[in-house]
Amino acid sequence: MIYEKMSQATKTMKSSMIRELVASTKNIEGLISFAGGFPSPKTFPREILSKLYADVITKEGDTVLQYGGSQGDQLLKEELLKWEGYDDLSQEQILITAGATNAIFYMSMALLEPGDVIICEAPSFLGSLVAFEAMGAELHSIALDQEGLDITLLQAKVEELAKAGKRIKFIYTIPDFHNPTGVTMSYPRRKQLIEFALAMEIPILEDNPYSRLRYSGKDIPSLFRLAHDEYGNTEIITEVVTFSKILGPGMRLAYVKGSSVLIERMCSWQQKVNIAPDNVSQRVAARFLTEGHMQAHLESIRKFYQPYLDKMLKCMADYLPSYIQYGKPEGGIFTWLWLPEDMSADLLFEQAKAHKVTFIPGSKFYPVGQEKFNCLRLNFSYSNLQQIEQGMQSLGKLMEDFYT
Amino acid sequence: MIYEKMSQATKTMKSSMIRELVASTKNIEGLISFAGGFPSPKTFPREILSKLYADVITKEGDTVLQYGGSQGDQLLKEELLKWEGYDDLSQEQILITAGATNAIFYMSMALLEPGDVIICEAPSFLGSLVAFEAMGAELHSIALDQEGLDITLLQAKVEELAKAGKRIKFIYTIPDFHNPTGVTMSYPRRKQLIEFALAMEIPILEDNPYSRLRYSGKDIPSLFRLAHDEYGNTEIITEVVTFSKILGPGMRLAYVKGSSVLIERMCSWQQKVNIAPDNVSQRVAARFLTEGHMQAHLESIRKFYQPYLDKMLKCMADYLPSYIQYGKPEGGIFTWLWLPEDMSADLLFEQAKAHKVTFIPGSKFYPVGQEKFNCLRLNFSYSNLQQIEQGMQSLGKLMEDFYT
Repeated sequence: MIYEKMSQATKTMKSSMIRELVASTKNIEGLISFAGGFPSPKTFPREILSKLYADVITKEGDTVLQYGGSQGDQLLKEELLKWEGYDDLSQEQILITAGATNAIFYMSMALLEPGDVIICEAPSFLGSLVAFEAMGAELHSIALDQEGLDITLLQAKVEELAKAGKRIKFIYTIPDFHNPTGVTMSYPRRKQLIEFALAMEIPILEDNPYSRLRYSGKDIPSLFRLAHDEYGNTEIITEVVTFSKILGPGMRLAYVKGSSVLIERMCSWQQKVNIAPDNVSQRVAARFLTEGHMQAHLESIRKFYQPYLDKMLKCMADYLPSYIQYGKPEGGIFTWLWLPEDMSADLLFEQAKAHKVTFIPGSKFYPVGQEKFNCLRLNFSYSNLQQIEQGMQSLGKLMEDFYT
Repeated sequence: MIYEKMSQATKTMKSSMIRELVASTKNIEGLISFAGGFPSPKTFPREILSKLYADVITKEGDTVLQYGGSQGDQLLKEELLKWEGYDDLSQEQILITAGATNAIFYMSMALLEPGDVIICEAPSFLGSLVAFEAMGAELHSIALDQEGLDITLLQAKVEELAKAGKRIKFIYTIPDFHNPTGVTMSYPRRKQLIEFALAMEIPILEDNPYSRLRYSGKDIPSLFRLAHDEYGNTEIITEVVTFSKILGPGMRLAYVKGSSVLIERMCSWQQKVNIAPDNVSQRVAARFLTEGHMQAHLESIRKFYQPYLDKMLKCMADYLPSYIQYGKPEGGIFTWLWLPEDMSADLLFEQAKAHKVTFIPGSKFYPVGQEKFNCLRLNFSYSNLQQIEQGMQSLGKLMEDFYT
């Protein structure tokens, strides 16, 4: 009975197929996984957090266990603006949310009518794509090159959509250590993108989970930072930063900066969707900052992951056939392979599973109907160094044997 | 620029006017407040929670700080079904959410198309009403009497809506210590409601934040329990129970039981909206149950609130003019007054504010266009006993002076 009453969006809603893929390998003993996007539990600052949770409840229990404001913990917001060095941003330009997905959802709720267009990168983070689609958005994707989103393609696409009378609500991009490709948008490309967005008045949703995970090379300012510093604009970019990769995803915390007009409406949606994020975890994150743990903690995370990236890059060079193409990310948790056009990563996935190695076929990261099949994503933050060596050796061999 | 791009729902969205009312009294020194709906911080089990948070991070940090499933913490779900004594319900019939509002949002997302009808009680919990309206629902309200939702009026309304070709998606009710009226639906009324819903195939959303806060009288089974026990049905009722009034609202935790088909889709929405509730708080709540703290804690909360209710009832009898009508709730945190037809609680609110007493005018709890103005809500869980005495004395005097 209840099924008949469901909304059309709910009846046709897709879930992230990555979950099902990962589930299909769950009971394989000795499996080496390059599939997930989980941070290593070894990077969780357990000792400090354990003490902070206990302290916060003991000393501030009256307020942190009580209802909190939908805009988020005032102290956390202040600390974040201080930490990021934005002394000219107002409290009305930052909102705490229950994770990055939550912020992306509120931005979508604030802007989308069914049929509206979101321009995304291809490939892109599947979790966001399925959420956009469930909310009735039409997704149009733009290919990436080694410098990130291709602006020429973007311009052509916007022109084409304008001609077709479509309403573009925003551009969704992951500029740093992109999921799934690991690509980082270059500085000139960032400026081009901002200038294009300003000229066309198209807002940009900047998803920034990984920029603090840089293990070599030089930081590039976020789009929000660039728009703020170089163009004096804090409205065209809405930047979402999560704590999931720098504290722990279980705490479900992220923050979003942008236009106060937009932030206010996103906050109104938060009030209707979950009242506010968890107050206890919010105050713990605030104390983590006020007590000055963040800098040392980030350094320890970077030191922790660096050998994993190094190992993965070395194994890719050592074991992959020469016709496999890949970039060399300087951070994040993913690398991406381009296979020959006739080599299907979906097929390879099944073969690899039989050899106890797993990854995510690239096709899963494209909007429906826009898939590419000769590509795949490798995660290097979950398996240990020996597993990376062994898994990549197997994978290289499987690729070499693919045509025989 | 961004405002023009907003969705219609976002542009026209209302926020809870209660917040603004409460904010308007914020800086009044010596104010006695019967306005909010906050539990007393004295009921928060701080010592136990402080220890549990520290323990859970220390011993289970690898998993609780990691991504968790969208369906919620497995252990918490098992413990809740055990605690409530449902050994025949499956894990697929219960979902953990980030508070009750969050569960209500997912149910609405799963079922609503713009223009669909939700039948609610009048008055009702404003937070839910504004969320329903923001999602495009048309609200039709049914008056309560001292036994709860009036079934005769409900039948007439459903008939009228059917004739008008409207699609009714669900009935929203708060059967126990109703917010804002304090009314508890009688046992016979509950059976009538379930039988009507079964006959008409109209799902019921049962919002149950207060049933554990009974200070006298006998428990009445929830609608979900009754449908389960007496009608062998676990699909017609979707019951939402929050931890906000029994542990602490800051933890943002609730759970919802119902049809596995519906729960699965609500879970899919959760995946898109916030991935999962806070894992740390979920596991702390689970440990609170496994370690057997809940029973004693609930008894201590009930013992704590009982004198407040007693005091409020005595003050209502002692100080209110004889023409003021009210019920006698046996639990919860609210009482409700009916004033003479020509006495506006909105006007009284302004006078009371000048005398440093505050409450919520009843009109705020009705769908737009369906307001009653000669009624008001009093909360008795926030002010202390002396404040209740003093505040009610002032309020009684203001009412007596109203016509002079």
